[in-house]
Amino acid sequence: MKIVLLGAGNVATHIGIALKETNAQLLQVYSRSFESAKTLGEKLAVDYCCNVDELNKTADVYLYAVKDDTLSELIKQTKILNGVHVHTAGSVKMDVFNGYVKNYGVLYPLQTFSKDKSVRFSEVPLFIESNNSFANEMIVRVAHMLSALVYENIDSEKRKILHLSAVFACNFTNYMYVVADELLQTIKLDYNVLLPLIKETTNKLNYLSPREAQTGPAARKDEKTIKKHIEWLQNNHDAKNMYELISKNIERNIN
Amino acid sequence: MKIVLLGAGNVATHIGIALKETNAQLLQVYSRSFESAKTLGEKLAVDYCCNVDELNKTADVYLYAVKDDTLSELIKQTKILNGVHVHTAGSVKMDVFNGYVKNYGVLYPLQTFSKDKSVRFSEVPLFIESNNSFANEMIVRVAHMLSALVYENIDSEKRKILHLSAVFACNFTNYMYVVADELLQTIKLDYNVLLPLIKETTNKLNYLSPREAQTGPAARKDEKTIKKHIEWLQNNHDAKNMYELISKNIERNIN
Repeated sequence: MKIVLLGAGNVATHIGIALKETNAQLLQVYSRSFESAKTLGEKLAVDYCCNVDELNKTADVYLYAVKDDTLSELIKQTKILNGVHVHTAGSVKMDVFNGYVKNYGVLYPLQTFSKDKSVRFSEVPLFIESNNSFANEMIVRVAHMLSALVYENIDSEKRKILHLSAVFACNFTNYMYVVADELLQTIKLDYNVLLPLIKETTNKLNYLSPREAQTGPAARKDEKTIKKHIEWLQNNHDAKNMYELISKNIERNIN
Repeated sequence: MKIVLLGAGNVATHIGIALKETNAQLLQVYSRSFESAKTLGEKLAVDYCCNVDELNKTADVYLYAVKDDTLSELIKQTKILNGVHVHTAGSVKMDVFNGYVKNYGVLYPLQTFSKDKSVRFSEVPLFIESNNSFANEMIVRVAHMLSALVYENIDSEKRKILHLSAVFACNFTNYMYVVADELLQTIKLDYNVLLPLIKETTNKLNYLSPREAQTGPAARKDEKTIKKHIEWLQNNHDAKNMYELISKNIERNIN
């Protein structure tokens, strides 16, 4: 299984590192930025290029992990008809390949990738879509090399909802941590005092549904506390607006 | 160390269970509801009552874990002058005891307590405030019996910010999970597909600050994806409003 990896950002880097630990043969990495291509190529000890004309044409799989807005343009430029072409984006339809290559699909890793934090890829759920059985077989093979959690037949409609749910469950929760951190800084307490609470909040989800696990002033309709909290946030408009809106939604939707 | 526990809700129940495993002697539990007092009393195998006149007057510590709005009224009714009186509320000032008892303070557990989920109390951070050194010594003794994480001299101003930060870090993040769950239900995927992502999102906080850990469309100012996501949420006004507001704040506040 010979693979070319297109992209050198967080997702590409983490996939590249994970691929190096499988039996797959990573032939080459590509990035339109020479510096990024070089950095990742040297990190993974593989060939690299920043010009689509130099792409290795013998790969079984071309794996695109680039920004959503550059994906479509890159597919047009690649001009390699053989191999299975696979993107990794949550919110881009599989059809983006239509008319440019014969065998294609999507391998969407539902995970958050940060630059300086390693990820155990074997525990990353991978969601697969493909345009024919040949493509499907190849993508599933790559997926199983990377992870124990492989979901097939997740079409573009489902994947977009998956991605959207991940924005709430990951990106927006993390931003709540940012706000909490900033509040604690005002009283000179370190953020790590919240870690046991955060750990337990997520740990509960192994036993209760999110709805059952909901606690707090809004869930118990404790208007007095909500009012006080909003007053204390008078000088922090962003946090205040979020507090009001989210509390209102909790009150309305959690009985 | 003899303790009377006032309250029979989630917090009182978890504290009661934790106290039973220490060397403290839990004398009695009180709840204004006979049924609740009986349930918790029998669960903990201790005396119980639902009438303040029947409260045991020989305790060293009276621990109040009741709803914020009923706390003040209960303190007025208790009429027991001896012992150290301690409440556990994040957003109620210590002064609520002023004029009613001599020795008092606060023991605030920064944790989320749900009815059907046990909590390892030894890992719950406890924040302490007291009105004199005698009260402080007693409260610290109780705190150290319960947990390894004890923070002294956290005044009511600091505690209110702690509580507010906990609402963001726990209650609001959990509500993001509720929204994610509801989105996944529309495509018949189980919520547990998100658990590796949620685990990693919080795990990152052991290595990166929340600000450094922020990822997602808004953090990378990916307007195209944000626009698509908002379109997909047209029929889900609550989720759409939160998506728009939180994304706007992330875009504005993250580099």
